[in-house]
Amino acid sequence: MTAYKDLSREELLELKSGLEARYEEVKAKGLKLDMSRGKPSVEQLNLSMGMMDVLHSGVDLTCADGVDCRNYGGLDGIAEAKQLLADMMEVPRDNVIIFGNSSLNVMYDTVARAMTHGVLGSTPWCKLDKVKFLCPVPGYDRHFLITEHFGIEMINIPMTPTGPDMDLVEKYVNEDPAVKGIWCVPKYSNPQGITYSDETVYRFANLNPAAEDFRIYWDNAYCVHHLYEDKQDYLIEILSECKKAGRQDMVYKFSSTSKISFPGSGIAALAASEANLNEIRSMMTIQTIGHDKVNQLRHVRFFGDVHGIVQHMKKHADIMRPKFEAVIDVLERELGGLEIGSWIKPLGGYFISFDSMEGCAKEIVAKAKEAGLVMTGAGATYPYGKDPHDSNIRIAPSYPTPEELSVAADIFVLSVKLVSIDKLLSQM
Amino acid sequence: MTAYKDLSREELLELKSGLEARYEEVKAKGLKLDMSRGKPSVEQLNLSMGMMDVLHSGVDLTCADGVDCRNYGGLDGIAEAKQLLADMMEVPRDNVIIFGNSSLNVMYDTVARAMTHGVLGSTPWCKLDKVKFLCPVPGYDRHFLITEHFGIEMINIPMTPTGPDMDLVEKYVNEDPAVKGIWCVPKYSNPQGITYSDETVYRFANLNPAAEDFRIYWDNAYCVHHLYEDKQDYLIEILSECKKAGRQDMVYKFSSTSKISFPGSGIAALAASEANLNEIRSMMTIQTIGHDKVNQLRHVRFFGDVHGIVQHMKKHADIMRPKFEAVIDVLERELGGLEIGSWIKPLGGYFISFDSMEGCAKEIVAKAKEAGLVMTGAGATYPYGKDPHDSNIRIAPSYPTPEELSVAADIFVLSVKLVSIDKLLSQM
Repeated sequence: MTAYKDLSREELLELKSGLEARYEEVKAKGLKLDMSRGKPSVEQLNLSMGMMDVLHSGVDLTCADGVDCRNYGGLDGIAEAKQLLADMMEVPRDNVIIFGNSSLNVMYDTVARAMTHGVLGSTPWCKLDKVKFLCPVPGYDRHFLITEHFGIEMINIPMTPTGPDMDLVEKYVNEDPAVKGIWCVPKYSNPQGITYSDETVYRFANLNPAAEDFRIYWDNAYCVHHLYEDKQDYLIEILSECKKAGRQDMVYKFSSTSKISFPGSGIAALAASEANLNEIRSMMTIQTIGHDKVNQLRHVRFFGDVHGIVQHMKKHADIMRPKFEAVIDVLERELGGLEIGSWIKPLGGYFISFDSMEGCAKEIVAKAKEAGLVMTGAGATYPYGKDPHDSNIRIAPSYPTPEELSVAADIFVLSVKLVSIDKLLSQM
Repeated sequence: MTAYKDLSREELLELKSGLEARYEEVKAKGLKLDMSRGKPSVEQLNLSMGMMDVLHSGVDLTCADGVDCRNYGGLDGIAEAKQLLADMMEVPRDNVIIFGNSSLNVMYDTVARAMTHGVLGSTPWCKLDKVKFLCPVPGYDRHFLITEHFGIEMINIPMTPTGPDMDLVEKYVNEDPAVKGIWCVPKYSNPQGITYSDETVYRFANLNPAAEDFRIYWDNAYCVHHLYEDKQDYLIEILSECKKAGRQDMVYKFSSTSKISFPGSGIAALAASEANLNEIRSMMTIQTIGHDKVNQLRHVRFFGDVHGIVQHMKKHADIMRPKFEAVIDVLERELGGLEIGSWIKPLGGYFISFDSMEGCAKEIVAKAKEAGLVMTGAGATYPYGKDPHDSNIRIAPSYPTPEELSVAADIFVLSVKLVSIDKLLSQM
């Protein structure tokens, strides 16, 4: 393959003409494809239908410690659900609180509490002139929306193949008392699928924050979401590393079963130090009498223990793997060597991250949309929706069928090629 | 019966000696009884066990508009759950948002949002020097804990047999721009079981608040929680009254199925004007991808429609009615004519409110506890836990069995008598 940049104007124009014909053909089909969100497919949802059978009117809904799951009470979760999620999150059971169906909600509430009440005695953030968060980019749009919602200034931190640029993270965190947090998806990151290296985690655990209320918002959303049995990333457990470093209060870990059981009806958890959890419980007790314990019990009865989750995730992997490979195959076959884009082949998670030539992402997404393919909005992977290079595009291959995916990937590469050619032509 | 106040010192002492003997007898039994919280009994929970059977792996979990309830999405609830709760709350379906398992959580979040973001464009409350809420007393402790948690100043408004003292409410709301809200349990109020009269509701709907962001926090927790079929209170629907008065944005209505299906696993709802709901949705979309739609579907499939709820509530009433009557009977039999306490016999809800002689409530609750009966802490029905008369005690008869209840009621009246006699003796 010849790189597009090495082609002459005439060669590019000829190429464009052929691609445009194909694009018009596809567009004429009036397709409706969606690669915009990390949404499990129907086939994946069906894996958990057994969860609908474990509780019925013939089953006692009392949990291990004698609490009737149907009634009020149980503020921070039933013991067996704590054990299940603690094992998944690789922390002791006492370091876990179980919440409702959404870890996003837990993260939102964690920031909201800091806004109105501070963190372990610090000044409430709403009383401060300036609060800042570090945002590894590209990252998860919904994280950035939370901090934007609360008027928190977001600072881009470039991702590297081993995690966020830790020189920058250390500089900001250790020197600026206005920096109160950093959003992390440490394993199979959204959208790049990068897992933080051991060194990165050690450096996180050994931060020396200028702000006493600085916290690492460690969203381990994809902790058991591998694509392969024989090739898996491994992430060091940060809470115990923080403890070793004498900084056990510095991290909040978030996780959920949203992409394990049912996205709308899973259970979420937060893991943290005893001091952090005690503070959270003291505020939770004002907010609620307790989350849905019947659903917690349902999850425990269905999965049994963390090994049940691991086995279950292999079934998810069997469905997800061919989809990821289908997209990667098309990218490699159609874009390999053209030097108009790069991507990372992940070993887990829900996304493939694509970087186009600078200044092309918005147009590529628009072009794909015109032909019936909805992608995550370009820029969404950056705070304020502003990708300074206009180059990152998140590809979410989970929801479409494999057949739809190959058509979708074709539309995508066609769009990449057409927009890139126009870009190159405009620069000649 | 002779009123205790008309007895001589000697008569009181003789009475006391007999009562003390009986008290020691009861105490020696080492009982453990609990009339502290409005918690449904096991028998009531069993009424909803059928809800565990309506969804299973053989059932399609797609809702009426084609949304797969298992997956992400559906921010403000599935259409059929909105219809069910809208009918129960007597508002149009478009005026309802469905939330998770806790209306308390919805109320907390509503205040939390106002703290950090204001209400429909007003200044965020956390930026104001002073925010005040009116609190009809006696009232619901968890309401007061929310406003206390956010540092909101609470002002006691005495309850009357027709609802809060509306002269006072109008004065505060219409004249003081720092007054941003009022907590109401308008039907079968907690703890008195009072239902606001038509005139009270009209006066609420025709308030002319000094603060543009004043809202009525209308917690209709007991809307269908009657004790009798032939004797029921009727409450005027406030959202439509507010609309008629040109003040449709002035009220947030809260409700849930917590005391209809399962307290820990129900569904909660908020009803309000379109402008209010749009603002709430715009913030919810930052907070969550959506609440548990499978549980919403479960409720719809189990109850069918609001008539299903009404029929279901008759079964609850059959269990609750004898318990209320057992307590009322003991109160009437043992305390009638003694002039050491008064109570209201409610037609619904979860509580009986008892007013002791001034300055006796704390001691009565302590006395009952000593004999093995846990009551709601005296003072809990007032903001900051401070009952200025130290006289209100909330009786929650729902959880104990009828047998336990009659013993519990006996301990209670014994405690009332003993503490009252001591009070009278000390005043001689």
